[in-house]
Amino acid sequence: MTAFSFSVTHTDGRARRGRMSTPHGEVDTPAFMPVGTQGAVKGVTHRDLESLGAEILLSNTYHLYLRPGDDLIARRGGLHAFTGWSKPFLTDSGGYQVFSLAARRTIDEEGAHFRSHLDGSAHLLTPEKATDIQAQLGSDIAMVLDECLAHPADEAAARQSMERTLRWAQRARARFLALSDKSGHPPLPIVTNPGQAQFGIVQGSIYPDLRDESARRTVEIGFEAYAIGGLSVGEPSDVMYDMVDRSTPCLPEGRPRYLMGTGTPEDLVEAVARGIDLFDCVLPTRNARNGQLFTSEGRLNIKNARYAEDDRPPDPACGCYTCRTCSRAYLRHLYMAGEINSSTLNTLHNLNFYLDTLRRIRDAIVFRRFESFRREFHQSLSRQLQDQ
Amino acid sequence: MTAFSFSVTHTDGRARRGRMSTPHGEVDTPAFMPVGTQGAVKGVTHRDLESLGAEILLSNTYHLYLRPGDDLIARRGGLHAFTGWSKPFLTDSGGYQVFSLAARRTIDEEGAHFRSHLDGSAHLLTPEKATDIQAQLGSDIAMVLDECLAHPADEAAARQSMERTLRWAQRARARFLALSDKSGHPPLPIVTNPGQAQFGIVQGSIYPDLRDESARRTVEIGFEAYAIGGLSVGEPSDVMYDMVDRSTPCLPEGRPRYLMGTGTPEDLVEAVARGIDLFDCVLPTRNARNGQLFTSEGRLNIKNARYAEDDRPPDPACGCYTCRTCSRAYLRHLYMAGEINSSTLNTLHNLNFYLDTLRRIRDAIVFRRFESFRREFHQSLSRQLQDQ
Repeated sequence: MTAFSFSVTHTDGRARRGRMSTPHGEVDTPAFMPVGTQGAVKGVTHRDLESLGAEILLSNTYHLYLRPGDDLIARRGGLHAFTGWSKPFLTDSGGYQVFSLAARRTIDEEGAHFRSHLDGSAHLLTPEKATDIQAQLGSDIAMVLDECLAHPADEAAARQSMERTLRWAQRARARFLALSDKSGHPPLPIVTNPGQAQFGIVQGSIYPDLRDESARRTVEIGFEAYAIGGLSVGEPSDVMYDMVDRSTPCLPEGRPRYLMGTGTPEDLVEAVARGIDLFDCVLPTRNARNGQLFTSEGRLNIKNARYAEDDRPPDPACGCYTCRTCSRAYLRHLYMAGEINSSTLNTLHNLNFYLDTLRRIRDAIVFRRFESFRREFHQSLSRQLQDQ
Repeated sequence: MTAFSFSVTHTDGRARRGRMSTPHGEVDTPAFMPVGTQGAVKGVTHRDLESLGAEILLSNTYHLYLRPGDDLIARRGGLHAFTGWSKPFLTDSGGYQVFSLAARRTIDEEGAHFRSHLDGSAHLLTPEKATDIQAQLGSDIAMVLDECLAHPADEAAARQSMERTLRWAQRARARFLALSDKSGHPPLPIVTNPGQAQFGIVQGSIYPDLRDESARRTVEIGFEAYAIGGLSVGEPSDVMYDMVDRSTPCLPEGRPRYLMGTGTPEDLVEAVARGIDLFDCVLPTRNARNGQLFTSEGRLNIKNARYAEDDRPPDPACGCYTCRTCSRAYLRHLYMAGEINSSTLNTLHNLNFYLDTLRRIRDAIVFRRFESFRREFHQSLSRQLQDQ
């Protein structure tokens, strides 16, 4: 019924090179999804994103639901028609923003009750509602609503939360299937992308047994693919790597694996080494707006006074528009002067760095030299710039 | 001594089609100069500006002097090397911003004493200093420091101010010539663009006789070209048109004429009809950031609720990136959501509208159909959009 498919074309150790097909085009994996929170990646146009080689964007259900509203977007024909981005979209469930942004939220078995951070209006996000909103948005990949547990959580709390997430996943899947055969209880949403896929989410905090069980039982429900959630929430890197290490073998070989909300360039390489195929993270875009550039030699804080008269490009090894045409001195001036261009130029560079890192990862897997790439990548980044 | 030249290639009535040569390239006139206040046009990259066909930018001496400083820019090799914009730059004298932005300013014969709006530091801008700063910036066209009189002013005040502006123009010209033959009193600035031209400025408020006299005496001092200043400061349009009408015949045929700080699309067409060759204005860029779009049917305020579900492009007659790829509904969403892209996409459109209007003006002059263009242009804009 779904236009979604995935195949692994090459492997190197546990690292996988693959291709994911969606109703709006193909995505080479491992892939990084720039975050377009409100239907736009902050600071760059769709044209910029295409020229950087972005093949899929993530957009946030919570934000779009509140403004301009999924009903309005559905009447426009869905997120692709509304935004003009013609390649794939993944939407999250809205849960993460309810937990991090909304006011006066309370969670019960039914779902998440909250008030809008924009106007204080009251809302209820259930697994079914999150499914319906995403059906109206018409993303190529929808996510199930999961409970986002704060870190740290004790094992009993983590088990309770995992059990609820599993019950919600069943409800979300039932609603998703009912929408596709039009058997759901009304009011039915406008399904703007009938080929939409739905991903389940593995939870379990930092408890390996819970992660195993969550993966097994989520796979039993049956989704087009699976994500690992509840990581990159403050736990140490090695704990995150362990959890990923533990989770991927429990997930089907033939389906993409998506590590949600991660992470630094180093994290991406380490997660690919453990079998991850998809990533999203606000780091390259948010840090760009704060003046932090990711480079082949480490991170560079452009506001640092030492760059005031530095005529070198931000990253001499980089071929992006920003590095080809701007000096550190000029970028520092734009940042200090509060120019909009500062965000644009820094974002272009950071996204290029992330997308290029994924391109190099994919090439390394094809040529079965991922391990040497991984070693060199970490060595290169450990030659940190002086301002670290 | 200067690499500056200008020739009128076609005329149609008093409208002129010409070409201006500068050390960083040629400019087809009549031309509109987008304003890059701090060495960057807000919201768009140099790449965008080139693709829109911008041939020359204006940058503000006051802002660059205060931050990052003309010394720093001179050590980088000048404004072109610093910003990466390789086509011509015109810089203003800094006077207008001293009058409009600076704190605790006092004017005397020596110059303008003021405090920085950034940090309160004390500064003195003299005709010589404004010339030196622009020599260090290395713009292709420098402007003399003039006194910017508030509107309205009585004729006695306007005469006094005009006389001071003439004395300042003589001092600025003397300093400019001394820099070129290195005979000036030290400390000498770093002259980063030896082919820089210097334009004089005609003042005289709204008094025709003063405008005549100012033009005649400014031409007597002798500059590469001449600007008309002190207009678009609150006087009615017909008064501005009259002053332009009166001033251009007093200025040499063989030199470009620059109407400073003007204006609306209608103003540009009317000024060309009176013999003007160069324009700058913040309207297209500033209004873009405030959600106002200039279209072939009039102005469109994108924040208006009536556009929330309007799938049409902002201007159906426009071929710019924004109009090709964005609906009014999406642009309204980006504006309401406070997305950076809103500024970028609106600015791309407004600058395209201005630059395209100038292209159409130039074509109309070549084919000697400027009068019919002018009539149709005003008729088209008078079919105002409903939200006016």
